[in-house]
Amino acid sequence: MKESGIGSQKIIRRRKDGELEYLPDELTIEEPLEICVGRKPIATTMRTPGHDKELAAGFLLSEGIVRDCNQIGSVSVAAENRVVVKLTSGVKSNLNSTKRFGTISSSCGLCGKTSIDAIRQNFPAMRSADIRVDVETLLSLPETLHNAQSDFARTGGIHAAGIFGMDGKLKIAREDIGRHNAVDKAVGRALLDELLPLNRHLLLVSGRASFEILQKALAAGIPIVAAVSAPSSLAVEFARDSNQTLIGFLRPPTFNVYTHIERVILDSA
Amino acid sequence: MKESGIGSQKIIRRRKDGELEYLPDELTIEEPLEICVGRKPIATTMRTPGHDKELAAGFLLSEGIVRDCNQIGSVSVAAENRVVVKLTSGVKSNLNSTKRFGTISSSCGLCGKTSIDAIRQNFPAMRSADIRVDVETLLSLPETLHNAQSDFARTGGIHAAGIFGMDGKLKIAREDIGRHNAVDKAVGRALLDELLPLNRHLLLVSGRASFEILQKALAAGIPIVAAVSAPSSLAVEFARDSNQTLIGFLRPPTFNVYTHIERVILDSA
Repeated sequence: MKESGIGSQKIIRRRKDGELEYLPDELTIEEPLEICVGRKPIATTMRTPGHDKELAAGFLLSEGIVRDCNQIGSVSVAAENRVVVKLTSGVKSNLNSTKRFGTISSSCGLCGKTSIDAIRQNFPAMRSADIRVDVETLLSLPETLHNAQSDFARTGGIHAAGIFGMDGKLKIAREDIGRHNAVDKAVGRALLDELLPLNRHLLLVSGRASFEILQKALAAGIPIVAAVSAPSSLAVEFARDSNQTLIGFLRPPTFNVYTHIERVILDSA
Repeated sequence: MKESGIGSQKIIRRRKDGELEYLPDELTIEEPLEICVGRKPIATTMRTPGHDKELAAGFLLSEGIVRDCNQIGSVSVAAENRVVVKLTSGVKSNLNSTKRFGTISSSCGLCGKTSIDAIRQNFPAMRSADIRVDVETLLSLPETLHNAQSDFARTGGIHAAGIFGMDGKLKIAREDIGRHNAVDKAVGRALLDELLPLNRHLLLVSGRASFEILQKALAAGIPIVAAVSAPSSLAVEFARDSNQTLIGFLRPPTFNVYTHIERVILDSA
Protein backbone atom coordinates (compact mmCIF):
# COMPACT_ATOMS: atom_id res chain seq x y z
CA MET A 1 0.00 0.00 0.00
CA LYS A 2 2.56 2.48 1.11
CA GLU A 3 4.71 1.71 -1.89
CA SER A 4 2.07 2.98 -4.25
CA GLY A 5 1.36 6.10 -2.22
CA ILE A 6 -2.29 5.13 -1.99
CA GLY A 7 -4.20 4.03 1.08
CA SER A 8 -7.66 2.60 1.35
CA GLN A 9 -10.50 3.02 3.79
CA LYS A 10 -14.27 2.69 3.96
CA ILE A 11 -16.40 5.75 3.35
CA ILE A 12 -20.07 6.61 3.09
CA ARG A 13 -20.91 7.97 -0.32
CA ARG A 14 -24.04 9.79 -1.39
CA ARG A 15 -24.88 8.74 -4.91
CA LYS A 16 -26.54 10.85 -7.57
CA ASP A 17 -29.91 9.20 -6.89
CA GLY A 18 -29.71 10.30 -3.28
CA GLU A 19 -29.05 6.80 -1.94
CA LEU A 20 -26.13 6.18 0.36
CA GLU A 21 -23.60 3.45 0.00
CA TYR A 22 -20.76 2.14 2.11
CA LEU A 23 -17.76 1.54 -0.10
CA PRO A 24 -13.98 1.45 -0.17
CA ASP A 25 -12.22 4.64 -1.14
CA GLU A 26 -8.65 5.43 -2.00
CA LEU A 27 -6.72 8.22 -0.41
CA THR A 28 -3.37 9.72 -1.20
CA ILE A 29 -0.96 8.95 1.61
CA GLU A 30 0.90 11.84 3.21
CA GLU A 31 3.60 11.22 5.77
CA PRO A 32 6.46 13.32 7.05
CA LEU A 33 9.90 12.85 5.53
CA GLU A 34 12.94 14.21 7.30
CA ILE A 35 15.76 15.27 4.99
CA CYS A 36 19.17 15.23 6.63
CA VAL A 37 22.52 16.40 5.34
CA GLY A 38 24.91 14.20 7.23
CA ARG A 39 23.64 14.21 10.79
CA LYS A 40 21.86 17.53 10.46
CA PRO A 41 18.10 17.53 9.77
CA ILE A 42 17.49 20.43 7.41
CA ALA A 43 13.82 20.05 6.52
CA THR A 44 10.72 18.02 7.12
CA THR A 45 8.21 17.65 4.36
CA MET A 46 4.76 16.11 4.25
CA ARG A 47 5.03 13.95 1.18
CA THR A 48 3.52 10.95 -0.53
CA PRO A 49 5.94 8.07 0.20
CA GLY A 50 8.02 6.87 -2.71
CA HIS A 51 10.98 8.31 -4.63
CA ASP A 52 12.23 9.77 -1.38
CA LYS A 53 15.87 9.89 -2.44
CA GLU A 54 14.92 11.86 -5.52
CA LEU A 55 12.85 14.20 -3.39
CA ALA A 56 15.82 14.87 -1.11
CA ALA A 57 18.16 15.42 -4.05
CA GLY A 58 15.72 17.75 -5.76
CA PHE A 59 15.20 19.71 -2.57
CA LEU A 60 18.92 20.25 -2.08
CA LEU A 61 19.13 21.50 -5.66
CA SER A 62 16.16 23.85 -5.26
CA GLU A 63 17.63 25.28 -2.08
CA GLY A 64 20.95 25.94 -3.76
CA ILE A 65 22.84 23.52 -1.51
CA VAL A 66 24.05 21.45 -4.45
CA ARG A 67 24.42 22.38 -8.10
CA ASP A 68 25.14 19.03 -9.68
CA CYS A 69 25.37 15.33 -8.98
CA ASN A 70 29.08 15.44 -8.23
CA GLN A 71 28.40 17.37 -5.06
CA ILE A 72 26.33 14.51 -3.69
CA GLY A 73 28.40 11.72 -2.19
CA SER A 74 25.49 9.43 -1.37
CA VAL A 75 21.76 9.45 -0.76
CA SER A 76 20.33 6.76 1.47
CA VAL A 77 17.10 5.89 3.22
CA ALA A 78 18.19 5.82 6.87
CA ALA A 79 14.78 5.00 8.30
CA GLU A 80 11.24 4.70 7.04
CA ASN A 81 10.71 8.44 6.94
CA ARG A 82 14.25 9.76 6.87
CA VAL A 83 16.67 10.29 4.00
CA VAL A 84 20.31 11.10 4.63
CA VAL A 85 22.37 12.90 2.00
CA LYS A 86 26.14 12.93 2.28
CA LEU A 87 27.78 15.74 0.41
CA THR A 88 31.26 15.60 -1.03
CA SER A 89 33.71 17.51 1.14
CA GLY A 90 33.91 20.76 -0.79
CA VAL A 91 30.20 21.41 -0.57
CA LYS A 92 29.86 21.56 3.19
CA SER A 93 30.69 25.21 3.55
CA ASN A 94 27.83 26.09 1.27
CA LEU A 95 25.47 24.31 3.60
CA ASN A 96 26.83 26.07 6.64
CA SER A 97 26.35 29.46 5.09
CA THR A 98 22.67 28.81 4.65
CA LYS A 99 21.13 29.78 7.90
CA ARG A 100 17.63 28.60 7.50
CA PHE A 101 15.86 26.12 5.32
CA GLY A 102 12.34 25.93 4.20
CA THR A 103 10.30 27.26 1.37
CA ILE A 104 8.13 30.20 0.67
CA SER A 105 4.93 28.91 -0.74
CA SER A 106 1.59 30.35 -1.55
CA SER A 107 -0.10 26.99 -1.18
CA CYS A 108 1.38 26.50 2.21
CA GLY A 109 1.30 29.94 3.54
CA LEU A 110 3.66 30.04 6.40
CA CYS A 111 7.23 29.12 5.94
CA GLY A 112 10.84 29.89 6.58
CA LYS A 113 12.61 32.31 4.34
CA THR A 114 11.61 35.90 4.47
CA SER A 115 13.26 37.19 1.36
CA ILE A 116 12.52 36.27 -2.20
CA ASP A 117 15.43 38.39 -3.28
CA ALA A 118 17.71 36.05 -1.38
CA ILE A 119 16.37 33.15 -3.41
CA ARG A 120 16.80 35.01 -6.65
CA GLN A 121 20.44 35.65 -5.88
CA ASN A 122 21.04 31.90 -5.66
CA PHE A 123 20.20 31.29 -9.27
CA PRO A 124 21.25 33.45 -12.21
CA ALA A 125 18.68 34.05 -14.93
CA MET A 126 18.51 31.76 -17.95
CA ARG A 127 20.53 32.79 -20.97
CA SER A 128 18.79 34.07 -24.05
CA ALA A 129 16.41 31.78 -25.85
CA ASP A 130 18.23 29.24 -27.96
CA ILE A 131 15.52 26.59 -27.95
CA ARG A 132 11.92 26.86 -29.07
CA VAL A 133 8.83 24.70 -28.82
CA ASP A 134 6.09 24.51 -31.41
CA VAL A 135 2.44 24.87 -30.56
CA GLU A 136 1.47 21.30 -31.45
CA THR A 137 4.11 19.88 -29.11
CA LEU A 138 3.00 22.19 -26.34
CA LEU A 139 -0.62 21.16 -26.76
CA SER A 140 0.30 17.48 -26.54
CA LEU A 141 1.93 17.69 -23.11
CA PRO A 142 -1.10 17.51 -20.77
CA GLU A 143 -2.45 14.34 -22.32
CA THR A 144 0.98 12.70 -22.28
CA LEU A 145 1.41 13.50 -18.60
CA HIS A 146 -2.12 12.46 -17.77
CA ASN A 147 -1.61 9.09 -19.45
CA ALA A 148 1.49 8.50 -17.36
CA GLN A 149 -0.45 9.12 -14.15
CA SER A 150 -2.44 6.60 -12.26
CA ASP A 151 -3.08 8.00 -8.82
CA PHE A 152 -4.29 11.39 -9.89
CA ALA A 153 -7.31 10.16 -11.73
CA ARG A 154 -8.30 7.89 -8.90
CA THR A 155 -8.19 10.33 -6.02
CA GLY A 156 -8.11 13.79 -7.50
CA GLY A 157 -5.82 14.57 -4.62
CA ILE A 158 -2.39 14.25 -6.10
CA HIS A 159 -0.23 16.55 -8.18
CA ALA A 160 1.94 15.58 -11.10
CA ALA A 161 5.08 17.05 -12.64
CA GLY A 162 6.58 15.98 -15.94
CA ILE A 163 9.89 16.79 -17.58
CA PHE A 164 9.67 16.66 -21.37
CA GLY A 165 12.14 16.82 -24.20
CA MET A 166 11.64 19.51 -26.83
CA ASP A 167 9.99 16.91 -29.07
CA GLY A 168 7.25 16.41 -26.46
CA LYS A 169 8.57 13.08 -25.23
CA LEU A 170 8.02 12.53 -21.51
CA LYS A 171 11.35 11.85 -19.81
CA ILE A 172 10.40 11.82 -16.13
CA ALA A 173 6.98 11.93 -14.42
CA ARG A 174 6.45 12.08 -10.68
CA GLU A 175 3.43 12.46 -8.42
CA ASP A 176 2.98 13.74 -4.90
CA ILE A 177 0.26 15.17 -2.70
CA GLY A 178 2.39 18.32 -2.62
CA ARG A 179 3.04 19.89 -5.98
CA HIS A 180 6.43 21.21 -4.94
CA ASN A 181 7.41 17.71 -3.92
CA ALA A 182 6.35 16.35 -7.31
CA VAL A 183 8.68 18.84 -8.98
CA ASP A 184 11.50 18.08 -6.54
CA LYS A 185 11.14 14.35 -7.25
CA ALA A 186 11.24 14.84 -11.02
CA VAL A 187 14.15 17.27 -10.89
CA GLY A 188 15.93 15.12 -8.30
CA ARG A 189 15.74 12.11 -10.62
CA ALA A 190 17.32 14.17 -13.39
CA LEU A 191 20.01 15.39 -11.00
CA LEU A 192 20.89 11.85 -9.87
CA ASP A 193 20.99 10.73 -13.50
CA GLU A 194 23.47 13.54 -14.25
CA LEU A 195 21.14 15.13 -16.79
CA LEU A 196 21.53 18.70 -15.52
CA PRO A 197 21.25 21.37 -16.76
CA LEU A 198 17.90 20.58 -18.40
CA ASN A 199 18.25 23.51 -20.78
CA ARG A 200 16.59 21.65 -23.63
CA HIS A 201 13.57 20.54 -21.63
CA LEU A 202 10.12 21.67 -20.54
CA LEU A 203 8.43 21.25 -17.19
CA LEU A 204 4.67 20.70 -16.96
CA VAL A 205 2.80 20.82 -13.64
CA SER A 206 -0.75 19.59 -13.25
CA GLY A 207 -1.97 22.46 -11.10
CA ARG A 208 -1.06 26.07 -10.57
CA ALA A 209 2.35 27.63 -11.06
CA SER A 210 3.65 29.29 -7.93
CA PHE A 211 6.81 31.29 -7.92
CA GLU A 212 8.52 28.36 -6.25
CA ILE A 213 7.82 26.04 -9.18
CA LEU A 214 9.67 28.52 -11.36
CA GLN A 215 12.51 28.64 -8.86
CA LYS A 216 12.88 24.86 -8.91
CA ALA A 217 12.83 24.83 -12.70
CA LEU A 218 15.48 27.53 -12.79
CA ALA A 219 17.68 25.58 -10.39
CA ALA A 220 17.51 22.68 -12.86
CA GLY A 221 18.11 24.95 -15.84
CA ILE A 222 14.65 24.44 -17.37
CA PRO A 223 13.75 27.36 -19.67
CA ILE A 224 10.05 26.62 -20.33
CA VAL A 225 7.47 25.95 -17.63
CA ALA A 226 3.83 25.15 -18.36
CA ALA A 227 0.95 24.78 -15.90
CA VAL A 228 -2.54 23.43 -16.39
CA SER A 229 -3.94 26.13 -14.10
CA ALA A 230 -3.17 29.73 -13.23
CA PRO A 231 0.20 31.20 -12.38
CA SER A 232 0.49 33.60 -9.48
CA SER A 233 1.60 37.18 -9.95
CA LEU A 234 4.92 36.38 -8.29
CA ALA A 235 5.47 33.41 -10.59
CA VAL A 236 5.03 35.72 -13.58
CA GLU A 237 7.43 38.29 -12.12
CA PHE A 238 9.98 35.62 -11.32
CA ALA A 239 9.75 34.06 -14.79
CA ARG A 240 10.12 37.43 -16.46
CA ASP A 241 13.24 38.27 -14.44
CA SER A 242 14.70 34.79 -14.84
CA ASN A 243 14.22 34.74 -18.60
CA GLN A 244 11.93 31.72 -18.34
CA THR A 245 8.96 31.13 -20.62
CA LEU A 246 5.81 30.69 -18.53
CA ILE A 247 2.67 29.17 -20.00
CA GLY A 248 -0.54 28.90 -17.97
CA PHE A 249 -3.99 27.38 -18.43
CA LEU A 250 -2.52 24.86 -20.86
CA ARG A 251 -5.84 23.27 -21.74
CA PRO A 252 -5.83 22.29 -25.39
CA PRO A 253 -6.66 23.84 -27.74
CA THR A 254 -6.04 26.99 -25.67
CA PHE A 255 -3.25 28.35 -23.51
CA ASN A 256 -1.84 31.62 -22.21
CA VAL A 257 1.74 32.79 -22.55
CA TYR A 258 2.75 35.06 -19.69
CA THR A 259 6.45 35.62 -20.30
CA HIS A 260 9.15 35.21 -22.95
CA ILE A 261 6.98 34.11 -25.82
CA GLU A 262 10.07 34.07 -28.05
CA ARG A 263 10.54 30.41 -27.14
CA VAL A 264 7.19 29.45 -28.63
CA ILE A 265 7.02 28.89 -32.40
CA LEU A 266 3.72 30.52 -33.19
CA ASP A 267 3.56 30.19 -36.95
CA SER A 268 2.47 26.71 -37.91
CA ALA A 269 3.72 27.14 -41.48
CA MET B 1 -5.26 46.85 -7.65
CA LYS B 2 -3.71 45.64 -4.48
CA GLU B 3 -6.87 46.18 -2.49
CA SER B 4 -8.75 43.65 -4.54
CA GLY B 5 -5.95 41.12 -4.52
CA ILE B 6 -5.99 41.10 -8.30
CA GLY B 7 -3.36 42.41 -10.66
CA SER B 8 -3.48 42.86 -14.39
CA GLN B 9 -1.02 42.33 -17.20
CA LYS B 10 -0.92 41.66 -20.92
CA ILE B 11 -0.68 38.08 -22.11
CA ILE B 12 -0.71 36.21 -25.40
CA ARG B 13 -3.63 33.83 -25.60
CA ARG B 14 -4.14 31.03 -28.07
CA ARG B 15 -7.81 30.84 -28.90
CA LYS B 16 -9.80 27.75 -29.78
CA ASP B 17 -9.61 28.54 -33.48
CA GLY B 18 -5.82 28.51 -33.27
CA GLU B 19 -5.48 32.27 -33.64
CA LEU B 20 -3.44 34.27 -31.16
CA GLU B 21 -4.53 37.39 -29.39
CA TYR B 22 -2.85 39.91 -27.16
CA LEU B 23 -5.14 40.73 -24.27
CA PRO B 24 -5.25 41.81 -20.64
CA ASP B 25 -5.31 39.06 -18.06
CA GLU B 26 -5.92 39.07 -14.35
CA LEU B 27 -3.63 37.42 -11.86
CA THR B 28 -3.98 36.77 -8.20
CA ILE B 29 -1.49 38.85 -6.29
CA GLU B 30 0.84 37.11 -3.86
CA GLU B 31 3.12 39.09 -1.61
CA PRO B 32 4.94 38.24 1.60
CA LEU B 33 3.36 39.23 4.92
CA GLU B 34 5.42 39.25 8.06
CA ILE B 35 3.49 38.44 11.21
CA CYS B 36 5.07 39.84 14.37
CA VAL B 37 4.13 39.34 17.99
CA GLY B 38 5.35 42.52 19.60
CA ARG B 39 8.78 43.09 18.11
CA LYS B 40 9.36 39.46 17.27
CA PRO B 41 8.69 38.24 13.71
CA ILE B 42 7.20 34.78 14.06
CA ALA B 43 6.24 33.89 10.51
CA THR B 44 6.28 35.08 6.95
CA THR B 45 3.52 34.01 4.61
CA MET B 46 2.99 34.49 0.92
CA ARG B 47 -0.54 35.75 0.83
CA THR B 48 -3.00 37.68 -1.28
CA PRO B 49 -3.07 41.19 0.23
CA GLY B 50 -6.20 42.11 2.14
CA HIS B 51 -7.66 41.07 5.51
CA ASP B 52 -4.13 40.92 6.86
CA LYS B 53 -5.11 41.52 10.47
CA GLU B 54 -7.55 38.62 10.30
CA LEU B 55 -4.86 36.45 8.77
CA ALA B 56 -2.49 37.24 11.62
CA ALA B 57 -5.16 36.59 14.24
CA GLY B 58 -6.19 33.32 12.65
CA PHE B 59 -2.58 32.21 12.40
CA LEU B 60 -1.97 32.85 16.09
CA LEU B 61 -5.06 30.82 16.90
CA SER B 62 -4.06 27.94 14.63
CA GLU B 63 -0.62 27.85 16.18
CA GLY B 64 -2.03 27.70 19.68
CA ILE B 65 -0.54 31.04 20.68
CA VAL B 66 -3.92 32.53 21.52
CA ARG B 67 -7.19 30.81 22.37
CA ASP B 68 -9.62 33.70 22.32
CA CYS B 69 -9.95 37.37 21.51
CA ASN B 70 -9.18 38.49 25.07
CA GLN B 71 -5.63 37.31 24.68
CA ILE B 72 -5.08 39.77 21.85
CA GLY B 73 -4.39 43.33 22.98
CA SER B 74 -4.23 44.84 19.51
CA VAL B 75 -3.62 43.97 15.88
CA SER B 76 -2.20 46.65 13.63
CA VAL B 77 -0.76 47.03 10.17
CA ALA B 78 2.72 48.36 10.93
CA ALA B 79 3.90 48.55 7.34
CA GLU B 80 2.63 47.53 3.95
CA ASN B 81 3.53 43.91 4.43
CA ARG B 82 3.81 43.62 8.18
CA VAL B 83 1.20 43.04 10.87
CA VAL B 84 2.01 43.44 14.54
CA VAL B 85 -0.04 41.66 17.18
CA LYS B 86 0.24 42.74 20.79
CA LEU B 87 -0.80 40.10 23.27
CA THR B 88 -2.22 40.80 26.68
CA SER B 89 0.38 40.25 29.37
CA GLY B 90 -0.59 36.78 30.56
CA VAL B 91 -0.21 35.24 27.14
CA LYS B 92 3.45 36.01 26.59
CA SER B 93 4.81 32.97 28.32
CA ASN B 94 2.84 30.76 25.98
CA LEU B 95 4.59 32.38 23.05
CA ASN B 96 8.00 31.95 24.60
CA SER B 97 7.45 28.26 25.16
CA THR B 98 6.84 27.75 21.48
CA LYS B 99 10.25 27.27 20.03
CA ARG B 100 9.52 27.27 16.38
CA PHE B 101 6.73 28.48 14.18
CA GLY B 102 5.61 27.40 10.81
CA THR B 103 3.22 24.90 9.40
CA ILE B 104 3.37 21.40 8.12
CA SER B 105 1.66 21.37 4.81
CA SER B 106 1.29 18.91 2.04
CA SER B 107 0.76 21.63 -0.51
CA CYS B 108 3.86 23.40 0.55
CA GLY B 109 6.09 20.56 1.30
CA LEU B 110 8.84 21.90 3.40
CA CYS B 111 8.14 23.63 6.61
CA GLY B 112 8.95 24.05 10.23
CA LYS B 113 7.49 21.68 12.71
CA THR B 114 8.58 18.10 12.63
CA SER B 115 5.96 16.55 14.81
CA ILE B 116 2.27 16.25 14.13
CA ASP B 117 1.81 14.81 17.56
CA ALA B 118 3.01 18.08 19.01
CA ILE B 119 0.27 19.86 17.11
CA ARG B 120 -2.36 17.41 18.24
CA GLN B 121 -1.44 18.03 21.85
CA ASN B 122 -2.23 21.70 21.45
CA PHE B 123 -5.88 21.09 20.75
CA PRO B 124 -8.11 18.61 22.55
CA ALA B 125 -10.56 16.63 20.42
CA MET B 126 -14.11 17.90 19.90
CA ARG B 127 -16.74 16.71 22.33
CA SER B 128 -19.35 14.24 21.21
CA ALA B 129 -21.71 15.26 18.45
CA ASP B 130 -24.43 17.55 19.69
CA ILE B 131 -25.13 19.26 16.40
CA ARG B 132 -26.11 17.75 13.08
CA VAL B 133 -26.46 18.96 9.53
CA ASP B 134 -29.00 17.71 7.04
CA VAL B 135 -28.10 16.60 3.54
CA GLU B 136 -29.92 19.42 1.76
CA THR B 137 -28.07 22.07 3.75
CA LEU B 138 -24.77 20.35 3.08
CA LEU B 139 -25.46 20.21 -0.65
CA SER B 140 -26.25 23.93 -0.73
CA LEU B 141 -22.89 25.09 0.64
CA PRO B 142 -20.68 25.03 -2.49
CA GLU B 143 -23.03 27.20 -4.52
CA THR B 144 -23.44 29.65 -1.66
CA LEU B 145 -19.69 30.01 -1.29
CA HIS B 146 -19.17 30.23 -5.03
CA ASN B 147 -21.70 33.04 -5.31
CA ALA B 148 -19.84 34.98 -2.64
CA GLN B 149 -16.58 34.72 -4.57
CA SER B 150 -15.44 36.99 -7.29
CA ASP B 151 -11.75 36.41 -7.81
CA PHE B 152 -11.87 32.64 -7.97
CA ALA B 153 -13.98 32.50 -11.07
CA ARG B 154 -11.88 35.09 -12.84
CA THR B 155 -8.44 33.63 -12.33
CA GLY B 156 -8.91 30.07 -11.22
CA GLY B 157 -5.93 30.74 -9.03
CA ILE B 158 -7.46 31.56 -5.68
CA HIS B 159 -8.83 29.46 -2.85
CA ALA B 160 -11.91 30.18 -0.80
CA ALA B 161 -12.97 29.28 2.72
CA GLY B 162 -16.46 29.80 4.12
CA ILE B 163 -17.81 29.53 7.65
CA PHE B 164 -21.49 28.60 7.68
CA GLY B 165 -24.18 28.37 10.32
CA MET B 166 -25.98 25.06 10.73
CA ASP B 167 -28.81 26.44 8.61
CA GLY B 168 -26.46 26.84 5.67
CA LYS B 169 -26.17 30.60 5.97
CA LEU B 170 -22.77 31.94 5.03
CA LYS B 171 -21.30 33.93 7.92
CA ILE B 172 -17.76 34.65 6.72
CA ALA B 173 -16.09 34.07 3.34
CA ARG B 174 -12.45 34.76 2.59
CA GLU B 175 -10.17 34.18 -0.39
CA ASP B 176 -6.45 33.80 -0.74
CA ILE B 177 -3.95 32.32 -3.14
CA GLY B 178 -3.02 29.98 -0.28
CA ARG B 179 -5.82 27.83 1.01
CA HIS B 180 -4.44 27.82 4.53
CA ASN B 181 -4.42 31.58 4.49
CA ALA B 182 -8.04 31.66 3.35
CA VAL B 183 -8.98 29.56 6.38
CA ASP B 184 -6.84 31.67 8.72
CA LYS B 185 -8.52 34.83 7.44
CA ALA B 186 -12.02 33.42 7.95
CA VAL B 187 -11.26 32.01 11.38
CA GLY B 188 -9.34 35.16 12.34
CA ARG B 189 -12.39 37.28 11.53
CA ALA B 190 -14.50 35.09 13.79
CA LEU B 191 -11.87 35.32 16.53
CA LEU B 192 -11.75 39.12 16.37
CA ASP B 193 -15.55 39.24 16.44
CA GLU B 194 -15.51 37.13 19.62
CA LEU B 195 -17.51 34.35 17.98
CA LEU B 196 -15.32 31.48 19.19
CA PRO B 197 -15.79 28.60 19.73
CA LEU B 198 -17.58 27.99 16.42
CA ASN B 199 -19.06 24.76 17.69
CA ARG B 200 -22.31 25.26 15.81
CA HIS B 201 -20.68 26.00 12.46
CA LEU B 202 -19.32 24.29 9.37
CA LEU B 203 -16.22 25.10 7.37
CA LEU B 204 -16.13 24.65 3.60
CA VAL B 205 -12.91 24.90 1.59
CA SER B 206 -12.89 25.18 -2.18
CA GLY B 207 -10.04 22.76 -2.74
CA ARG B 208 -8.56 19.79 -0.98
CA ALA B 209 -8.59 19.14 2.75
CA SER B 210 -5.13 18.78 4.21
CA PHE B 211 -4.57 17.81 7.77
CA GLU B 212 -3.77 21.41 8.53
CA ILE B 213 -7.21 22.62 7.46
CA LEU B 214 -8.64 20.24 10.05
CA GLN B 215 -6.20 21.56 12.63
CA LYS B 216 -7.27 25.15 12.00
CA ALA B 217 -10.93 24.18 12.21
CA LEU B 218 -10.28 22.37 15.48
CA ALA B 219 -8.52 25.41 16.90
CA ALA B 220 -11.68 27.40 16.19
CA GLY B 221 -13.93 24.68 17.58
CA ILE B 222 -15.53 23.80 14.22
CA PRO B 223 -16.95 20.25 14.28
CA ILE B 224 -17.78 19.76 10.58
CA VAL B 225 -15.37 20.37 7.72
CA ALA B 226 -16.29 19.94 4.07
CA ALA B 227 -14.03 20.14 1.03
CA VAL B 228 -14.86 20.32 -2.66
CA SER B 229 -11.94 18.04 -3.47
CA ALA B 230 -10.13 15.13 -1.85
CA PRO B 231 -8.92 14.92 1.72
CA SER B 232 -5.46 13.53 2.40
CA SER B 233 -4.93 10.40 4.43
CA LEU B 234 -3.56 12.46 7.29
CA ALA B 235 -6.57 14.77 7.24
CA VAL B 236 -8.82 11.74 7.63
CA GLU B 237 -6.71 10.39 10.51
CA PHE B 238 -6.66 13.77 12.19
CA ALA B 239 -10.43 14.25 11.84
CA ARG B 240 -11.10 10.79 13.20
CA ASP B 241 -8.95 11.39 16.27
CA SER B 242 -10.28 14.90 16.80
CA ASN B 243 -13.91 13.84 16.59
CA GLN B 244 -14.48 16.07 13.57
CA THR B 245 -16.83 15.20 10.73
CA LEU B 246 -14.95 15.30 7.43
CA ILE B 247 -16.78 15.47 4.11
CA GLY B 248 -14.90 15.38 0.81
CA PHE B 249 -15.75 15.73 -2.87
CA LEU B 250 -18.77 17.82 -1.95
CA ARG B 251 -20.05 18.17 -5.49
CA PRO B 252 -23.83 18.14 -5.46
CA PRO B 253 -25.65 15.86 -5.67
CA THR B 254 -22.82 13.63 -4.43
CA PHE B 255 -20.37 13.71 -1.53
CA ASN B 256 -18.24 11.40 0.58
CA VAL B 257 -18.24 11.20 4.36
CA TYR B 258 -14.87 10.12 5.72
CA THR B 259 -15.30 10.44 9.48
CA HIS B 260 -17.95 10.86 12.16
CA ILE B 261 -21.02 10.54 10.01
CA GLU B 262 -23.17 10.83 13.12
CA ARG B 263 -23.29 14.59 12.55
CA VAL B 264 -25.00 14.16 9.17
CA ILE B 265 -28.76 13.64 9.14
CA LEU B 266 -29.08 11.02 6.46
CA ASP B 267 -32.79 10.29 6.50
CA SER B 268 -34.66 12.95 4.61
CA ALA B 269 -37.98 11.94 6.14
